[in-house]
Amino acid sequence: MADKPSIPKGTRDFTPLEMTRRNHIFDTIRKIFKTYGYLPIETPAMEHLSSLMGKYGDEGDKLLFKILNSGDFKNKLSDDELATIPAGKLGTMISEKGLRYDLTVPFARYVVQHRNEIVFPFKRYQIQPVWRADRPQRGRYREFYQCDVDVIGSDSLLNEFELIRIMDQVFSVLGLKVVIKMNNRKVLTGIVEMIGEPDRMIDVTVAIDKLEKVGLEKVMLELEQKGLKRDSIKRLAPVLQMEGSSLKKMKFLEGYLEGSHIGEEGLSEISQLFGLMENDPAEAEFELDLTLARGLNYYTGSIFEVKSAEVQIGSICGGGRYDDLTGIFGLDGVSGVGVSFGADRIYDVLLQLDRFPRKDEMDTQLLFVNFGQREALHIFPILGQLRKNGIASELYPDVAKMKKQMSYANARKIPFVALVGEQEIEDGVITLKEMETGNQERLTPDQLVDRLS
Amino acid sequence: MADKPSIPKGTRDFTPLEMTRRNHIFDTIRKIFKTYGYLPIETPAMEHLSSLMGKYGDEGDKLLFKILNSGDFKNKLSDDELATIPAGKLGTMISEKGLRYDLTVPFARYVVQHRNEIVFPFKRYQIQPVWRADRPQRGRYREFYQCDVDVIGSDSLLNEFELIRIMDQVFSVLGLKVVIKMNNRKVLTGIVEMIGEPDRMIDVTVAIDKLEKVGLEKVMLELEQKGLKRDSIKRLAPVLQMEGSSLKKMKFLEGYLEGSHIGEEGLSEISQLFGLMENDPAEAEFELDLTLARGLNYYTGSIFEVKSAEVQIGSICGGGRYDDLTGIFGLDGVSGVGVSFGADRIYDVLLQLDRFPRKDEMDTQLLFVNFGQREALHIFPILGQLRKNGIASELYPDVAKMKKQMSYANARKIPFVALVGEQEIEDGVITLKEMETGNQERLTPDQLVDRLS
Repeated sequence: MADKPSIPKGTRDFTPLEMTRRNHIFDTIRKIFKTYGYLPIETPAMEHLSSLMGKYGDEGDKLLFKILNSGDFKNKLSDDELATIPAGKLGTMISEKGLRYDLTVPFARYVVQHRNEIVFPFKRYQIQPVWRADRPQRGRYREFYQCDVDVIGSDSLLNEFELIRIMDQVFSVLGLKVVIKMNNRKVLTGIVEMIGEPDRMIDVTVAIDKLEKVGLEKVMLELEQKGLKRDSIKRLAPVLQMEGSSLKKMKFLEGYLEGSHIGEEGLSEISQLFGLMENDPAEAEFELDLTLARGLNYYTGSIFEVKSAEVQIGSICGGGRYDDLTGIFGLDGVSGVGVSFGADRIYDVLLQLDRFPRKDEMDTQLLFVNFGQREALHIFPILGQLRKNGIASELYPDVAKMKKQMSYANARKIPFVALVGEQEIEDGVITLKEMETGNQERLTPDQLVDRLS
Repeated sequence: MADKPSIPKGTRDFTPLEMTRRNHIFDTIRKIFKTYGYLPIETPAMEHLSSLMGKYGDEGDKLLFKILNSGDFKNKLSDDELATIPAGKLGTMISEKGLRYDLTVPFARYVVQHRNEIVFPFKRYQIQPVWRADRPQRGRYREFYQCDVDVIGSDSLLNEFELIRIMDQVFSVLGLKVVIKMNNRKVLTGIVEMIGEPDRMIDVTVAIDKLEKVGLEKVMLELEQKGLKRDSIKRLAPVLQMEGSSLKKMKFLEGYLEGSHIGEEGLSEISQLFGLMENDPAEAEFELDLTLARGLNYYTGSIFEVKSAEVQIGSICGGGRYDDLTGIFGLDGVSGVGVSFGADRIYDVLLQLDRFPRKDEMDTQLLFVNFGQREALHIFPILGQLRKNGIASELYPDVAKMKKQMSYANARKIPFVALVGEQEIEDGVITLKEMETGNQERLTPDQLVDRLS
């Protein structure tokens, strides 16, 4: 036989078992999104490269999968151009389309393109794969699903509150203990204002982001190397060293941020959200984490991140408020907030903790052994009755040896096997065998439906 | 504002309404596949170009979307090669991956790659988008979904029977009147044998395929132009002219195919399937159509096609048996049979006949008007109770004018609005307003849940 065929690195096939488990996650998330009034949309896998380029930074541009133009893609290029233009630039001259890199930019494009038909505030969710030409490694794929939920066209903090409730409910229904961390970009802006480095927001947040990993001293060293004033770093230190409850942190910030208009605004938003949460507590731990910065530039207010409280793994959900996402497509002044669930990491956590449900209730419940044509004819109407009642059931398609048919049932983990031979046909019954116990019962078709419902 | 952003031609955004309707089709199909014991798989959007090239004919190769290699895609090519190699060939030198063109070839690749973990007979379904660089036109897209269901590793005719039942049930549940047409490649082979043109199978079936459109004379002319012997065409005529019931056609073929081993085998398969169908009749019309050929080369036995009996449109489902699909990936001797549902055409038919369900039961049922912070705090636990009972409900996020909130409810087609003001809080009730009638009721939270369940 020829070499085994394979798939591109960083991509995956999903087997039926994996599909069932992934669908458990997607279905849970989708169902909760819906009860909160969010509506589904889908966008094409391909977008114009012009819609994608420049939206994810230089690094992101390199990670876009580009689709080669159809037909004679080089007919507008001279030999000289083909030879001398570097691959990076040439790529954008022979490709006009790219695979979507996330769901956020296509969503912004969608909102602007469909703005006249959309009812605002627009609460949408979207569950689709995205593609990134990243170096594949454990837990990082070139094709993976994102589950995004956003509300756009309302700047009310109640939206943030609702998203926190959604995150809490999703992980509670999935049976996972999590910590929902929040922060606010305005508070971070206030902090850099107060230390006298209003233009160093990115340097400061990048450094803060590493606090947990590398410790206080190294973070302070990095800030010094980046050229922050000694005095600024000294003034930042109490923020980095702050410990204790969220309430204590808020109290501290009240004094620290006094005089920074934006900082105070951010703190007030945080306080309001904590107030709302207190009124109706979450199952998850909910905490203020001032080291939470989240890299994406478009966040302007609340930011969120969810971590597993049981498994050591990166964040399994995150997001925040953006005041100008659609601005990149020419529509200004539309505020939104959203979070994205990381299905692959949630999958890994559930698997590691063995928290997937034992069985998909829609897996095949019953296999009829195939004894031959005459018995099959007798079985078909019973099969029809079972299926119409939503009981997944099968007749083994071939008249194979009993042993082969039973080992199919075993391998497929089908819990019941039905035997219908001459005697059963005469008596109008089915012999039902429970695979685990070996117990047998004789049942009429109606009784069989009841038994398996 | 800048130009409105757009999406690549031949691709589509799906709005919430379209999503709800499409999901109605997918959910119906998926649910039925499951009750018949079929298991879901998914494969990556990208396959190695080597897995795709040469599988769909020369025309198909041209219609593959190719993904430009990441990084310096031209570093292995000389300037001379870049300049002189034609785009078609050059494309395969700077691309190693392509987007899947259908679900059949990836399925064959999957079966071969995973053959040691698969339990045979393997009953799988797969619902995913495919991409083709076809010229976009009305009803033809460059990105569209396929819904495939196949069983591989069993040559029993019961599989065909089951697929007919599945097709029948899907369209019956969707509320569509259809005709399920069947034929058998072996019968077609028998016919070309009997007319003395055993090597002209493709010419004959291509011509037959046009019978309905262009009529008998033109078909016979075409066959003559293609170089078929006069005598052969004369002997073919009675097949082309055959009319009447499926039973009558079978009777005719019995005589006509006498002596062609393969033809008789095909006819026997058809008779058996008609026998099984008679035992347990379909809701759909079920008929033998000798002009049904289906272009795909890999079919070797039964072939199927479903047409709407109410709307003039191409086939909305089709498939057949293939004896050597996995042979292209080096695994011989595995027989399978499957059909593919055309979601886009089914969508068009349902839309034209206005047969989509009025409403998604998971659409938002209830909107709470937002009167302010105090009222909102009172509402949150009620919202939580509704949502936990699966009732999709929302609180308008902003304290906007009543008129604006009501017009949101109207535009979203939310059937109920809840008013909770000071008096309601005091009395522990909710005023529920039915939008269509304007009727108002005062209900406790528990009564509200009951009312909307």
